[in-house]
Amino acid sequence: MPAVPGVALASAEAGVRYHGRPDVMLAVFEAGTVMAGTFTRSATRSAPVIWCEERLKSQTGPSPTPLALVVNAGNANAFTGKNGLGAVKRVADATAAALSIPAEAVYLASTGVIGEPLPAGKIADKLVELGNARTGQAWEGAARAIMTTDTYPKAAAAVVDIAGVPVTIAGIAKGSGMIAPDMATMLAFVFTDCAITPGALQPAVSSIADITFNAITVDGDTSTSDTLLVAATGKAPMAPIASRREPRWRAFAAGLETVMRDLAIQVVKDGEGASKFVSITVSGAKSSQSARKIGLAVANSPLVKTALAGEDPNWGRIVMAVGKSGEAADRDRLRISFGDILVAEHGWVAPAYREADGAAYMRRSEIEIAIDVGIGRGRATVWTCDLTKRYVEINADYRS
Amino acid sequence: MPAVPGVALASAEAGVRYHGRPDVMLAVFEAGTVMAGTFTRSATRSAPVIWCEERLKSQTGPSPTPLALVVNAGNANAFTGKNGLGAVKRVADATAAALSIPAEAVYLASTGVIGEPLPAGKIADKLVELGNARTGQAWEGAARAIMTTDTYPKAAAAVVDIAGVPVTIAGIAKGSGMIAPDMATMLAFVFTDCAITPGALQPAVSSIADITFNAITVDGDTSTSDTLLVAATGKAPMAPIASRREPRWRAFAAGLETVMRDLAIQVVKDGEGASKFVSITVSGAKSSQSARKIGLAVANSPLVKTALAGEDPNWGRIVMAVGKSGEAADRDRLRISFGDILVAEHGWVAPAYREADGAAYMRRSEIEIAIDVGIGRGRATVWTCDLTKRYVEINADYRS
Repeated sequence: MPAVPGVALASAEAGVRYHGRPDVMLAVFEAGTVMAGTFTRSATRSAPVIWCEERLKSQTGPSPTPLALVVNAGNANAFTGKNGLGAVKRVADATAAALSIPAEAVYLASTGVIGEPLPAGKIADKLVELGNARTGQAWEGAARAIMTTDTYPKAAAAVVDIAGVPVTIAGIAKGSGMIAPDMATMLAFVFTDCAITPGALQPAVSSIADITFNAITVDGDTSTSDTLLVAATGKAPMAPIASRREPRWRAFAAGLETVMRDLAIQVVKDGEGASKFVSITVSGAKSSQSARKIGLAVANSPLVKTALAGEDPNWGRIVMAVGKSGEAADRDRLRISFGDILVAEHGWVAPAYREADGAAYMRRSEIEIAIDVGIGRGRATVWTCDLTKRYVEINADYRS
Repeated sequence: MPAVPGVALASAEAGVRYHGRPDVMLAVFEAGTVMAGTFTRSATRSAPVIWCEERLKSQTGPSPTPLALVVNAGNANAFTGKNGLGAVKRVADATAAALSIPAEAVYLASTGVIGEPLPAGKIADKLVELGNARTGQAWEGAARAIMTTDTYPKAAAAVVDIAGVPVTIAGIAKGSGMIAPDMATMLAFVFTDCAITPGALQPAVSSIADITFNAITVDGDTSTSDTLLVAATGKAPMAPIASRREPRWRAFAAGLETVMRDLAIQVVKDGEGASKFVSITVSGAKSSQSARKIGLAVANSPLVKTALAGEDPNWGRIVMAVGKSGEAADRDRLRISFGDILVAEHGWVAPAYREADGAAYMRRSEIEIAIDVGIGRGRATVWTCDLTKRYVEINADYRS
């Protein structure tokens, strides 16, 4: 992982819930940084999510002071009533004191158990140490510090050429399920030295989130804490990108998409109990939004997911899931393929399809399903994993 | 099960897919019968569902001829292209010939594998035998003939007093999942001797379906074939109920609700792999529709369902599911109880709650969860079951 000019990282063991591993990370961004983000739409979202939404809303341009991001694992600080906001403020104040910045310059995220009070003191006590230890290279510790039930740390990077200027985009993520067992959450943090205004960065983040992080599902459960933050330090030698109509915006967005898609796919591949990685591409829909909704209906169907676990080429369940999505589809033009194998067309099984071919294909560890619903030109790809007995074990036995 | 005046039943072994058990049933309703129904909203609904929808649409009053209902198990006749409608017509024609009625007087339903051609000839060949064998008492054979992965036949009945006239309401249902493994479907058929006009019967059926069959979920997957048909023969000595504003309508609707709720709960209790029966009552919502949506979000959450399987009083996952429903809820007024045990209130765990009490409660086989979302007066109850390793086994291994 490359260093990103203007960004320094550190991690530490605060003992929030886990022991013998890092569980808190700090990122510090030099003055001039622009932030953007997207968050869970949950009505029961966590205290740090509400705090970050407020910080972003009050951002008017590049920050005149350094910014900080503090993330802990082990406790989500969600559904913790008024004490939740108190814990957020305590960590923000300790960070502000350690770095000599205002508390309003601190972004926070928490992942872990819901409904237990956050031991904010344990985190606050580590901030001077973290502030002193920070370097541009500490990616692995940071990626490990935000893990809950993840089985490996997740990171991705790209260097893109923006009108002759090489710009670095690098990020980390955690998640082992859209929500892990009462360990809420997917978190993703992406940092770049690109110079870009808030008004140009936020639309890039929002539109790319829709086709990357919002296009993955492990179990269809949405966390109280999902957080994506993108920090642009502006350290690259370039005039700021000020509008999405600039060609440079598209070059930056393409690089950001590469990094975000890579991180999103790493989350799905680490889905709880997953034995297969599944791409579902829907075409011929009314719109790309409609295509994504159909794709997610298939990806979230317990019957499709258990068939995948059983290596059963059970395309009837895909027909069912398309039907239940509530989106427009023409039953008599529906076309389904597994990889290069045409399975169904014209509202019935394809004449040349042989069950043995489908069964052989299903034994792969990476499965591609293509569905054309025969209505329009909307297209989308979503990514998921299978539903195994191991998923039930992990989630039924987690707290016992 | 009581006989319903004007209704005769029979079942037989047609060998559609199963052997050594009945797999086709016939019900015949005397002239003067009124039908009502509700069907899956799936965009990929089956040929018999489309046929029944057309029959109901063209109904203008009590039928001048007898009506028939033919149901088979083992093959859903869904996603079978133009041949699907051909198979429907072949069975309807054979029924019409056997009973000397028009083909348009025949209602049909099919449940079983999706995407395989229905062996209509095997069913058609049985219709003379079925027509000759019919009696008012053959409930058990009929209930068994429509089973797929069900582990027991499902029937319920009530006798209600409608302005001094005793009226019988009796029905059967099948389903072991909103959809069983590529054996699509929930089917329910309810018969009554009540005299009632189509304009008064259909709104009773639609509104009660919303709070009974549409309030249950095993896995959130909607079948291509879900069918509820209610036949009212008008044989009871009474003037027809002509409007939902009559007090007699409410008496009839209350009896119909009792029978439909009983059948719906039997379906959930027989949910694939289920080890617990779970009632979820949501109150304080914006509307009863909003309350049902929140209840179904909780009931369909894999993380809530696996916690139930693990007997884990994991109320944080309930908070998460309320949040993801997309419906209005006040996080800081949310109140959650397990039976009589108050678990959470005012946006945090209740001061008197002890985890040991919650854990003891979760060991019961019937669980009651109450959720007040603190917004308004909307209220709804939904019913579900837990998600066990056995569910994955049944659905991953089904076709192998």
